[in-house]
Amino acid sequence: MTDNLVEKTLTRKEILTGNVIHVVVDEVELPNHEKGQREIVLHPGAVAIMALTSDKKMLFVRQFRKPLERTILEIPAGKIDPEDTDTLATAKRELEEETGYQGEKWQFVAEYATSPGFSNEIMHTYLATDLVKVEDPLAQDEDEFLQLVAYTLEEAKAGIKQGEIYDAKTIMAIQTWQAMTESGEL
Amino acid sequence: MTDNLVEKTLTRKEILTGNVIHVVVDEVELPNHEKGQREIVLHPGAVAIMALTSDKKMLFVRQFRKPLERTILEIPAGKIDPEDTDTLATAKRELEEETGYQGEKWQFVAEYATSPGFSNEIMHTYLATDLVKVEDPLAQDEDEFLQLVAYTLEEAKAGIKQGEIYDAKTIMAIQTWQAMTESGEL
Repeated sequence: MTDNLVEKTLTRKEILTGNVIHVVVDEVELPNHEKGQREIVLHPGAVAIMALTSDKKMLFVRQFRKPLERTILEIPAGKIDPEDTDTLATAKRELEEETGYQGEKWQFVAEYATSPGFSNEIMHTYLATDLVKVEDPLAQDEDEFLQLVAYTLEEAKAGIKQGEIYDAKTIMAIQTWQAMTESGEL
Repeated sequence: MTDNLVEKTLTRKEILTGNVIHVVVDEVELPNHEKGQREIVLHPGAVAIMALTSDKKMLFVRQFRKPLERTILEIPAGKIDPEDTDTLATAKRELEEETGYQGEKWQFVAEYATSPGFSNEIMHTYLATDLVKVEDPLAQDEDEFLQLVAYTLEEAKAGIKQGEIYDAKTIMAIQTWQAMTESGEL
């Protein structure tokens, strides 16, 4: 049923091999046999962590986001490195690097494409509970500057309303947190 | 409190001016006065539409997404054009182009950054109800090939589980649909 929607790659032009993203422009054959252009941002994929404290707060990091030219509050997250064995390993590393905490319990929550019109970035979200403060945690990336915040569900929902919380993975995490709380899973 | 996180642009290099995205590489001054590199995908912004039929189904479009090299099911969406007066106008146009329906009632739902680590794309989501089939709807974009589907909430949730529904804006829309249904708003 869906085969007739496929676009065949005719040529691929390399545009940028960056530290985080790789940009290419494909010439494709459209389903009607005309030619089209697709500008594509290749990304290694990323993880995001819903880290819940024993007093029912979630950990967030405040970070300046150059593309938005402003500071927003997000759940801890980071891209998959070539040496990561799996996305759970990435999640454990990123949580410790960005917050100084480890989780004793981990649960897979969701996986999705962040912006499939132009990017292949896949976000993998995990829930971490039974958090333990690490004495000597993994260092943050050299070019990352973060402030750690812990919010209740009500504070997080207020953060969305005020625009301090403004990105898809974080808003989805808070929606999921609320749904899991209401269903008694948390 | 947050000023010390700001990154100042030192230089900007133009990499790609595409049909959809514009890619630049900024050299920035980090908060510790070291230099860093930010690869940025500039995007005009986009809209997404939660279009609900009178029999409590949502409209979805099946579309091949070249970055993912597969077909997925998404809510109707599209990028903001320079001639659009506002995001609601974009939403009305995209709904008609992609589904052949107009909504008689419109409501703003949410606004968020899809992937703030590397892109400034902002997604604006609207809810459209009281749908009316248009006799002679606006034509789809020349390079868009879509199949229209209407799902109940249960079918949509099954679609997420099976991976047919796989992108952030659509999963968020379904989470919002469920929450509005449970709260009696819909």
